[in-house]
Amino acid sequence: MEPLPRAIDHVAIAVPDLEAAIAEYTKTLGVRVAHRERIEEQGVSEALLEVGGSYVQLLQPLGPDTPVGKFLAKRGSGIHHVAYRVPDVAAAIAALKARGARLVDETPRRGSRGTKIAFVHPASMGGVLVELVESPTAPAKHGG
Amino acid sequence: MEPLPRAIDHVAIAVPDLEAAIAEYTKTLGVRVAHRERIEEQGVSEALLEVGGSYVQLLQPLGPDTPVGKFLAKRGSGIHHVAYRVPDVAAAIAALKARGARLVDETPRRGSRGTKIAFVHPASMGGVLVELVESPTAPAKHGG
Repeated sequence: MEPLPRAIDHVAIAVPDLEAAIAEYTKTLGVRVAHRERIEEQGVSEALLEVGGSYVQLLQPLGPDTPVGKFLAKRGSGIHHVAYRVPDVAAAIAALKARGARLVDETPRRGSRGTKIAFVHPASMGGVLVELVESPTAPAKHGG
Repeated sequence: MEPLPRAIDHVAIAVPDLEAAIAEYTKTLGVRVAHRERIEEQGVSEALLEVGGSYVQLLQPLGPDTPVGKFLAKRGSGIHHVAYRVPDVAAAIAALKARGARLVDETPRRGSRGTKIAFVHPASMGGVLVELVESPTAPAKHGG
């Protein structure tokens, strides 16, 4: 069986202050901002910092009643989810369903950067909220 | 300034039952176990699952009084830390100190797979415990 994910697309970190977090990461790790976007329907403003073909995604909630706002209030700053890059998110959803995984999204929805995404429930992934990402523009990546 | 990390080396997930977590991840995502190791001085048994040149690291504590055992008791299963691959961990420690980051390890110590590692305090990384990894055997990875 070929692995479903081709790469770690991003690690998402919930932060209360996007500008402060960008300043901290770019200064400390010397990484650069590859993309910024405000995604109203997900209630977040995001910045993607590139790390060797993957990203660190910094997420600031647009308000306290958003999913990331509630996460921050409950847990504080920290990792919100991990995203895997897949060639076809609809096919990945079908494969995961066939393998008995519990899905948050049964059909793909729109992510940032023109991606198609779907979330997998933490109960099926060792307590980790997992996102599947089909990206038309992801950087090339070649595992050894 | 060149980015300090060359890649996301791994995302580490604390789990109570390593065999169950391996079965879940290999079945659901179709990934394979690349390495297993018991690291007495860190109090963990680990499995590395390869994803496109990075790893998902599953960590089972060797006992309740270990750092990962305490994390599990407090937070439950979930992401324990994120690790970045660096070419020279001693140089990375020096660079982070110069940039005012708070370090857990001021000198490199031994990780699994013959790696040299150091941890950076969550206070300097948006609430995320960060590990720096210098690996002699990491798979090749080429960001686009």
